Amino acid sequence: MGMSYLVYPGAHHTRFHHAVGCIYLMQKAIDTLRMKQVEINNKEEEALYIAILLHDIGHGPFSHALENVIVKNMNHEELSLRFMDLLNREFDGGLDLAIEIFKGVYHRKFMHQLISSQLDMDRLDYLKRDSFYSGVAEGNINSDRLISMLDVKDDQLLIDIKGIYSVEKFIVARRLMYWQVYLHKTSLAAEQILVKILKRAKEMIGDDISLKASKSLLYFLTTDVDAASFDNTALRMFSSLDDFDIISALKEWSNHPDLILSSLSNSIINRKLPKVIIQNKPFNDSYFKKISDEVAKSYSIDIEKVDYFVFQGAVKNQAYNAEDERINILDKNGKITDIVEASDDLSMSGLSRSITKYFICYPKLY
Amino acid sequence: MGMSYLVYPGAHHTRFHHAVGCIYLMQKAIDTLRMKQVEINNKEEEALYIAILLHDIGHGPFSHALENVIVKNMNHEELSLRFMDLLNREFDGGLDLAIEIFKGVYHRKFMHQLISSQLDMDRLDYLKRDSFYSGVAEGNINSDRLISMLDVKDDQLLIDIKGIYSVEKFIVARRLMYWQVYLHKTSLAAEQILVKILKRAKEMIGDDISLKASKSLLYFLTTDVDAASFDNTALRMFSSLDDFDIISALKEWSNHPDLILSSLSNSIINRKLPKVIIQNKPFNDSYFKKISDEVAKSYSIDIEKVDYFVFQGAVKNQAYNAEDERINILDKNGKITDIVEASDDLSMSGLSRSITKYFICYPKLY
Amino acid sequence: MGMSYLVYPGAHHTRFHHAVGCIYLMQKAIDTLRMKQVEINNKEEEALYIAILLHDIGHGPFSHALENVIVKNMNHEELSLRFMDLLNREFDGGLDLAIEIFKGVYHRKFMHQLISSQLDMDRLDYLKRDSFYSGVAEGNINSDRLISMLDVKDDQLLIDIKGIYSVEKFIVARRLMYWQVYLHKTSLAAEQILVKILKRAKEMIGDDISLKASKSLLYFLTTDVDAASFDNTALRMFSSLDDFDIISALKEWSNHPDLILSSLSNSIINRKLPKVIIQNKPFNDSYFKKISDEVAKSYSIDIEKVDYFVFQGAVKNQAYNAEDERINILDKNGKITDIVEASDDLSMSGLSRSITKYFICYPKLY
Amino acid sequence: MGMSYLVYPGAHHTRFHHAVGCIYLMQKAIDTLRMKQVEINNKEEEALYIAILLHDIGHGPFSHALENVIVKNMNHEELSLRFMDLLNREFDGGLDLAIEIFKGVYHRKFMHQLISSQLDMDRLDYLKRDSFYSGVAEGNINSDRLISMLDVKDDQLLIDIKGIYSVEKFIVARRLMYWQVYLHKTSLAAEQILVKILKRAKEMIGDDISLKASKSLLYFLTTDVDAASFDNTALRMFSSLDDFDIISALKEWSNHPDLILSSLSNSIINRKLPKVIIQNKPFNDSYFKKISDEVAKSYSIDIEKVDYFVFQGAVKNQAYNAEDERINILDKNGKITDIVEASDDLSMSGLSRSITKYFICYPKLY
Repeated sequence: MGMSYLVYPGAHHTRFHHAVGCIYLMQKAIDTLRMKQVEINNKEEEALYIAILLHDIGHGPFSHALENVIVKNMNHEELSLRFMDLLNREFDGGLDLAIEIFKGVYHRKFMHQLISSQLDMDRLDYLKRDSFYSGVAEGNINSDRLISMLDVKDDQLLIDIKGIYSVEKFIVARRLMYWQVYLHKTSLAAEQILVKILKRAKEMIGDDISLKASKSLLYFLTTDVDAASFDNTALRMFSSLDDFDIISALKEWSNHPDLILSSLSNSIINRKLPKVIIQNKPFNDSYFKKISDEVAKSYSIDIEKVDYFVFQGAVKNQAYNAEDERINILDKNGKITDIVEASDDLSMSGLSRSITKYFICYPKLY
Repeated sequence: MGMSYLVYPGAHHTRFHHAVGCIYLMQKAIDTLRMKQVEINNKEEEALYIAILLHDIGHGPFSHALENVIVKNMNHEELSLRFMDLLNREFDGGLDLAIEIFKGVYHRKFMHQLISSQLDMDRLDYLKRDSFYSGVAEGNINSDRLISMLDVKDDQLLIDIKGIYSVEKFIVARRLMYWQVYLHKTSLAAEQILVKILKRAKEMIGDDISLKASKSLLYFLTTDVDAASFDNTALRMFSSLDDFDIISALKEWSNHPDLILSSLSNSIINRKLPKVIIQNKPFNDSYFKKISDEVAKSYSIDIEKVDYFVFQGAVKNQAYNAEDERINILDKNGKITDIVEASDDLSMSGLSRSITKYFICYPKLY
Repeated sequence: MGMSYLVYPGAHHTRFHHAVGCIYLMQKAIDTLRMKQVEINNKEEEALYIAILLHDIGHGPFSHALENVIVKNMNHEELSLRFMDLLNREFDGGLDLAIEIFKGVYHRKFMHQLISSQLDMDRLDYLKRDSFYSGVAEGNINSDRLISMLDVKDDQLLIDIKGIYSVEKFIVARRLMYWQVYLHKTSLAAEQILVKILKRAKEMIGDDISLKASKSLLYFLTTDVDAASFDNTALRMFSSLDDFDIISALKEWSNHPDLILSSLSNSIINRKLPKVIIQNKPFNDSYFKKISDEVAKSYSIDIEKVDYFVFQGAVKNQAYNAEDERINILDKNGKITDIVEASDDLSMSGLSRSITKYFICYPKLY
Repeated sequence: MGMSYLVYPGAHHTRFHHAVGCIYLMQKAIDTLRMKQVEINNKEEEALYIAILLHDIGHGPFSHALENVIVKNMNHEELSLRFMDLLNREFDGGLDLAIEIFKGVYHRKFMHQLISSQLDMDRLDYLKRDSFYSGVAEGNINSDRLISMLDVKDDQLLIDIKGIYSVEKFIVARRLMYWQVYLHKTSLAAEQILVKILKRAKEMIGDDISLKASKSLLYFLTTDVDAASFDNTALRMFSSLDDFDIISALKEWSNHPDLILSSLSNSIINRKLPKVIIQNKPFNDSYFKKISDEVAKSYSIDIEKVDYFVFQGAVKNQAYNAEDERINILDKNGKITDIVEASDDLSMSGLSRSITKYFICYPKLY
């Protein structure tokens, strides 16, 4: 959950716990589908467990916060695939089927949907788990009931119409978790600062200023790694990099003589978080410039460095996107329709609108 | 919850329990509002407790199911008021203020809104309670958080914008409870049958056929009571009438020689419930006539009596109705807007559409 | 839960719900045992479901409160057996095995232990259920974990030593539920009053005073039924007798001219419950006589009738009784020991002591 | 919770969260006591909040696991006091009263009992919290009810006799959490290994082998700090030392050429945990020697170094210790007795027996 723990102090659960939870839900889903005469053989079952267990292994420290930062232009799915490929070589092709399912190239498409779709085991686990650990009760979903409503027709994963209200509740819960937790302005700001700290560290190392950090973190600070240059060394380094490396570095850097590095590090370590304003329309340029000027002046820093402290951005969320991936509902006559159509009111069409919010951050002292 | 226990076997909680729960929430609401500098004096506090404690006292057996059946043209609020008036005389005017608040004539309007509005203590208690006892987890709401977000401005009860997602979740939960629980087709049918049983019993008593029943129930079966003729005798009789009178009568009547009375009573007592079909558009007349004819024939009853067994109806629900009563949201600048406007997506406008469903019931044997 | 709802207003759950819950736990137990290589064939599985579904069918209204009152000298197990025998005839011997298991004569003893022993599915369901509905959180047990620890060795149902703390917690929870809920002095008194009401009603009917009541209840008030005379008519009458018959009768009787009958009935219906004192040693006779005299005088009733209002009794509970039925623990070396021995402290031996408490009831007015 | 997360993967909650939870419970406790006419003035209230907020501030990384290891002969209470003293100087005596209460020298003794006693806010928070995050449902306690039963008489914190079963349940839950969670053999072993890793690191640094670690950790590895030499520098260093320093060091050290350091570090970081046997009596010496010899041989290490890998120990727990600190029960006649006396069975005396268990650890490979 990135830096959400700064807002919700219970949110310290780990990706390991999530991976175990996903396998558990996958077991339930397979049981349910088999009971409904969907044939899944033992090899497919094993592959589904492997795929869901490893689906997130490519996440680096602080999850999405540092995606595309530590490794340029590679998202966590591509990184997960690199790990699976390596393991597949070690296990002499034992992950072949899991990888096919993960990539979505296996001929039985519904299996990929169990791993990655609007109602995959990943979401069913993380929404419930994040709601539990953050204490945001409204995000709780009934994953047991949702799984018991799963079915497959024409190789499509779908939900029996009896479960339609649970699906709606799921979509609303998801939207709520996005705005209230995942995109909470405070954790958003903290995550931006994290990105800026790493940028500053790289810059300084480029200027031959030595910085204390773990071996793995130093590797990524000194080497520009992207999809093309991502080799086995990079993979090994990446695999040993986690939140501990980042936080330990920040703790050291918070005492560094460089004002930018130390004050940013300090703002995370000692919760001296910036002021964040969030609104439904973009901020105007003159307002942004005015703040930038004043911060540059009061911090006595160059105006081109002020974007370490004053910055803006946008976040977007669409609770349900039918164009991307539909949630299929199976009605009593065996017809398949999209949830928006099947739902008996208009709220679903509202939920499929994309919402954008704009934020601006600057130091509180100001 | 009417006859919902036929579908959700845990739903046997009582109105007494609900009334106690409402007072508890009212205490929390008053604490919260006072903390936010809303002045509520001790007399007003007491009146709010009395009003919320008694707000539902006019409910007869099986709540809404028999509203307007046992007493014609009087809803439960009017009946509650009769009880309050009686108690007020007994307590020498001690309920004066409570009654003013209950009627909505007290000059501080927000107090009435605590008793009766989209976000009153009544709803905050019954949604959570019904979700708990029915086991329909999706209906659970976060009443603690909702209450902590309450505020009053310009004599209007409102919700701080920080709680906007909780309000949305509340409206969605309410809609879900309506369709999945309160308007579940099986309890709907059972409640219709209950109405028909009482109608049949009245008819038979009118024909001088003697029926076993409690004193209170016999009173209402032999006397046509409406708002005009509702006197103290009626009130006393009504006060001693509860689910036990109805169920006990049904148990006796299930062995009565009258086929209509006994088979309908039997269908409730021994769970021999009818077939119910529910759909989004009205049934066409010829279909309804065809079923009626066949049932009349196979039961060997007159066609004009067949509507005891074959009947149709419609149910309507509107998750949120701004014209009726708004949910006011207080934004960061102190402006008050309706939830539909304040919400950042279109789902709320969808939720404020009214939905109608149509159902038809007929004996399963058929 | 007898009259516990007078103390814990949520405790309105039904025996039907409990029976369904027991089957659910039995499914889990069978799954667990089969996974541990305990062979249970399909016929045995079905018989276990039948036996647990029907194990409590012999309970009359208000469960234990009226056991041995409505039907003399027959406890609910014997009555359950009568129902099973009747059903067995209807189903042409289809319940043969279920009955053998229920009686404990089937050669695989552990199956009877699943139905009736210290850790049977009955207790695992009712403790959790009663804790849930009464709201007494301390009575909550972890039935999932307890079932997952079940095993069978030498035809004995036992618990793996890993689950020993859960067993201890279970025994403590059970003890707590006994003293705090099942034997709560207020419900205890109410149940005694119920017995006295039925006794008074019988007495009056014996004196040819006519009383309003349901057909089934009148049957048992006019007929002395015991194990010897309990025939099919009695069984049919018993089967249609439930809480509704009793409460409806009490409602009618609370307006009867007989002071004893009406004031006792009234005390239940309108919660005018007596004063109850409970202590660890018996009350002395002179104290009891003094109260009796004063109540007789102030009520103007014969001294020999005063025991309708002033009475005493004792309740006994033993959290764990190894002589009766042991809880077997399977240690890491495959040795079976009793929980008291296996437990590493002395609390278990304490819990196996029998505790007796003494109570006295008299009208509050006094 | 030390290294419990290796067994219960959800147990990643923090001391910060616990401290906030303790203040919350303290607010409830103060409300309850004031309602019962126990006078607590505003200055005392504030002091109670400060004292409970800071009561655990002296805990170092991994809590009890490294107590007396990082700083010799100083437990966490003494360290907490050092922090409070420093803050008191900063706040010009603003913590005077809080410190008096914390030390137990304030004349109103019950206030110290709210901070530190068998039923203090600390235990009421951590038991519930640890049960929640570990998922060990049996450890859940009803802290709301326990707090509502608090009272003060003769300057003694006590529990109303109505809450006696909740107290018993609390003691049983606590015992269960000790054996099942806090003293779980796997986390026990991991914590011992942590101690050995730091011992080895110190040894190596003493031999002038350079080791990578954070500034604070290096300080404590190179300096022998005890109560006498614990100055402000030590305090500052200690304040910036947390789990991140330890885990980051272990990650680096797991690749160090020193076999002992790297394999121990590796066993924590990569969950290669040793075999642990736990039993109720001490292991005999020849058994221990035999294992030690074999491990020394197969690891090719000196026999005097083998205790890094093969070691034994004992853990002790006493669920309730009346000699130390009693739980006082206030009976209906206003008499105060100890819980063991007040409890109506013998289980409590059993629970007050001290239990010792013995364990032995050695590498699994062996």
